Amino acid sequence: MSNEVNSNDLMAICRRRGFLWPSFELYGGVAGMFDYGPLGSNMRNNIVEVWRDIYRGREGFIEIDSETVNPREVFKASGHVDEFADLITYCGGCDSPFRADHLVKPFFDNPDVLSPKELDKAFVEHDVKCPECGGILGPVEEFNLMFKTTIGPGSSRVGYLRPETAQGIFVNYLNLYRYNREKLPLGVIQTGRGYRNEIAPRQGMIRMREFNMMEVELFVDPEDKGWSRFPDIENDMITLVPNTGTESVTMTVGEAVDRKIIANKVLAYFVYTTQQLLVRLGVDPKRLRFRQHLRDEMAHYAMDCWDAEVLLSYGWIEVTGIADRGCWDLSRHAEFSGVELTHFKKFDEPKEMEVDRVKAKHKALGPKFKDKAKAIAEVMEAKTPSDVTDGKLIMDIDGEQITLGNDYFEIVRVLEKVSGERVVPHVIEPSYGLDRIFYSVLEHAFAYDKKENYTVLRLAPEVAPIKAGVFPLMEKDGLDALAMDIYAKIHSPSVEAYYDGSGTIGKRYARMDEIGTPWCITVDYESLEGPDKGTVTIRERDTTCQKRVPADSVPDILRSMLCGKLSFGDL
Amino acid sequence: MSNEVNSNDLMAICRRRGFLWPSFELYGGVAGMFDYGPLGSNMRNNIVEVWRDIYRGREGFIEIDSETVNPREVFKASGHVDEFADLITYCGGCDSPFRADHLVKPFFDNPDVLSPKELDKAFVEHDVKCPECGGILGPVEEFNLMFKTTIGPGSSRVGYLRPETAQGIFVNYLNLYRYNREKLPLGVIQTGRGYRNEIAPRQGMIRMREFNMMEVELFVDPEDKGWSRFPDIENDMITLVPNTGTESVTMTVGEAVDRKIIANKVLAYFVYTTQQLLVRLGVDPKRLRFRQHLRDEMAHYAMDCWDAEVLLSYGWIEVTGIADRGCWDLSRHAEFSGVELTHFKKFDEPKEMEVDRVKAKHKALGPKFKDKAKAIAEVMEAKTPSDVTDGKLIMDIDGEQITLGNDYFEIVRVLEKVSGERVVPHVIEPSYGLDRIFYSVLEHAFAYDKKENYTVLRLAPEVAPIKAGVFPLMEKDGLDALAMDIYAKIHSPSVEAYYDGSGTIGKRYARMDEIGTPWCITVDYESLEGPDKGTVTIRERDTTCQKRVPADSVPDILRSMLCGKLSFGDL
Repeated sequence: MSNEVNSNDLMAICRRRGFLWPSFELYGGVAGMFDYGPLGSNMRNNIVEVWRDIYRGREGFIEIDSETVNPREVFKASGHVDEFADLITYCGGCDSPFRADHLVKPFFDNPDVLSPKELDKAFVEHDVKCPECGGILGPVEEFNLMFKTTIGPGSSRVGYLRPETAQGIFVNYLNLYRYNREKLPLGVIQTGRGYRNEIAPRQGMIRMREFNMMEVELFVDPEDKGWSRFPDIENDMITLVPNTGTESVTMTVGEAVDRKIIANKVLAYFVYTTQQLLVRLGVDPKRLRFRQHLRDEMAHYAMDCWDAEVLLSYGWIEVTGIADRGCWDLSRHAEFSGVELTHFKKFDEPKEMEVDRVKAKHKALGPKFKDKAKAIAEVMEAKTPSDVTDGKLIMDIDGEQITLGNDYFEIVRVLEKVSGERVVPHVIEPSYGLDRIFYSVLEHAFAYDKKENYTVLRLAPEVAPIKAGVFPLMEKDGLDALAMDIYAKIHSPSVEAYYDGSGTIGKRYARMDEIGTPWCITVDYESLEGPDKGTVTIRERDTTCQKRVPADSVPDILRSMLCGKLSFGDL
Repeated sequence: MSNEVNSNDLMAICRRRGFLWPSFELYGGVAGMFDYGPLGSNMRNNIVEVWRDIYRGREGFIEIDSETVNPREVFKASGHVDEFADLITYCGGCDSPFRADHLVKPFFDNPDVLSPKELDKAFVEHDVKCPECGGILGPVEEFNLMFKTTIGPGSSRVGYLRPETAQGIFVNYLNLYRYNREKLPLGVIQTGRGYRNEIAPRQGMIRMREFNMMEVELFVDPEDKGWSRFPDIENDMITLVPNTGTESVTMTVGEAVDRKIIANKVLAYFVYTTQQLLVRLGVDPKRLRFRQHLRDEMAHYAMDCWDAEVLLSYGWIEVTGIADRGCWDLSRHAEFSGVELTHFKKFDEPKEMEVDRVKAKHKALGPKFKDKAKAIAEVMEAKTPSDVTDGKLIMDIDGEQITLGNDYFEIVRVLEKVSGERVVPHVIEPSYGLDRIFYSVLEHAFAYDKKENYTVLRLAPEVAPIKAGVFPLMEKDGLDALAMDIYAKIHSPSVEAYYDGSGTIGKRYARMDEIGTPWCITVDYESLEGPDKGTVTIRERDTTCQKRVPADSVPDILRSMLCGKLSFGDL
């Protein structure tokens, strides 16, 4: 069997068998959109459950679900309104839109760093014309990739479909922090839709306009980038492509941190967690690597960033990004909302520290405010230097608002016993592209026997959309009733079964192999009478071995094999 | 304890404890939008799993996941572009928008049937002014409630956020029908976001701009509206409010069909299934009723329609609609797409039937086409009368396109043996409002002891966001280590546990009672030594009873109680 896969063949199977359907084909289709069919929907949910098992189960992170339509303010703060854009050009002749950098790919190693002006020039220099009609290309301009809409009547409140689920976590930071009883680390996960209004989507599921993400935002103390479970994995191996070269190197996670290849332990832990997750889902470890962002590729605020890349028929494709985003996200939302988004970090014991305080100038207050002066001084000294705006303090004195300039107060540095300090948490973000992972798992599971024209998807049982096919040898003589009874006992949303009574048994096995069903149960005449009465055969997909087991025990056997407590060999 | 609930109090608990947070509060909030916090997100997922258990598990329906952004064509066909609107008026003074029908509620029983002109007149007659500023209201007009956007660059391709998940199923009908091996019934479910750009949302979770649905589309043979499992439930009771009166009546499901109160068995079965689902989730059966749509309330194409209504602090609120939509949905999409969306219904045995056929006029074809005439006649007679457009047939003859008028053919009625016929399936649609169900479950679970100021959410264990609290009596002497060990053994995304070591035990029980945690495990000094060594206490929320059980068996006990195999009384 060959593992070589052509993405068109695989997508054809996906369509024919009900994993994926191009959306809106009834109306001519929309590029970059796919619907998940029954098998795809199950399999995608299974992937999400494995991700949850690791992040909510093992790590104890919490999950939220926030809105997909967001008001403009959110993406103004996040930077998406100003920077989430591709460069576009329209043909002057036929008006077709193109991604400008894609048109000059033959002439540049890294065309996506070119400016609009450089691209305009490149079109002229290299005589680039419209690929559709040969027309002259228009000026290159920015095209914001967010889907825009308006919230409520009128056009006053601009909204966007979120390009990532992350912002829904950041804007809820205070709620989440309180939920976590004001402690760090605070790990939050979210899965759901993201949107990117691509100019010209292609490459199947790799570039989608509406896609699915699984994002993790871990808020940590900026001065503590360790992780309690790091020792569990520090001796495990990982394959890295550091940005100091282009070669991949394999080393232990501990070594990667010690040699400062990965910036810190918590980031390294979640790079490794990502490897665990992807391999458990079925990504071939030999076709998986972690590539560090190049210095000019990394966001200016990122302290370190690694992409999990999977080797697909399209080449090496990023399926996950794991970044230490520093204090960027919370600082930006604090700046734009005017709300403090911090963690109060208690010291082990109170420290003597130099702190700046507001001190009232009693000599100025007294003559001016007379018997009110004392009350004003008290309110004044309860303020902090950060409350001073343009050299002035605004105070509420018995319901009256009083604004005083620095004739009446000064900022002094004093030694104080301080029980803790406010810090802006740093964010460690493993961001998973669910559709790309879904597709990677399919490609790496694909095995094809050309001579026999036979396809097997070697999906991990916990990922496979259907766990068991249930067949009566013939649909008569009570074989069908027994098979249907077994089906009903197995089948549930978490252990999906498929009853199939039509065609030869060989054809039925082939249908199940093609969609990755790990086991098939067959009821035959021995099941009904003779020494094997009450037993059925169970067949393993990858070995095609068959064993007889008691019909009654099939549900338990399947459940035990699914959670890994039992192997087919043990039967 | 009182079950009376004030929605503000309940929402305050939801916010404080992390069920729900008004979205984008950091930026002043957006009306009609809520984020699900950690507890809400878990609980909502649990509700979805119960729904899946019934529809995918018991009924064997298939699940898909389609896109939320749809091109205009879809909603042109569904009718939403033209009809999914509320009537709006803007104040001439302050420009505030209002739902016009809401402003005349005091004067009409059923203001939502009034036309724009009737509303204009009503404003004058009843002297209705802007509630904000007292200004004169402008003319009433239609406001389409879909969020609008554009797909891809330019403004050429209009898209909308789907107002329901159903259309994603209808437009995939052919894919789904093939997946189901061209058989009916074909049951398909989908859960996900729906959007409705409300003019002025209020009533908390009842009217949301971005909401969550669980929809079921069951395609059935229009001539067979029975259901195989109907006999299992025909003697069970259901409370109905038929549209022939306003009184509720309780009867068996079978009687409701026999007396033609519910149109047919399959619809009645899913009305009853909805009752099963809602009650299993925790809706109080005494505060649940099924109300038939009034004749003028029912969509013109609907053959029958029932709303599941739950009595909440807002009054009776629709949480689910169960409709027999006839052939409407598929017919409309067939009409607008030009693609036949039918089921081939095989007769038990071939029937002699009168059918219309295309018959070639050989006498006309011969002289004109000479030796080609025979080939043309063959292609012609393979066509059906539905291929005739404007009296003409277009044929492909050896790669050449020939168009011929009815001088060359006639439509004749002949007797033929026919193996089956094409029918447009009818759609039975139970459509669940997930957020409203979520909120209903919370209201009906709410119990409050005013004297003690003590709240308990009596959530069903399978719905509760956290299944078990795990407490060390004190966080020392190894009690904490044992408690943490038990926590780790229990905790998973499907059996969420919560470790709590702070405050008095009473406070910790209270915290868990308030969020509906059914069981709490406490590790005390007896757990460590003495005759009860190795045991812990387990406390039941609703009785506050405590029992000692072996620490080792806690995970199994919880799992068994969760799936209903074991009750607390059995311990």
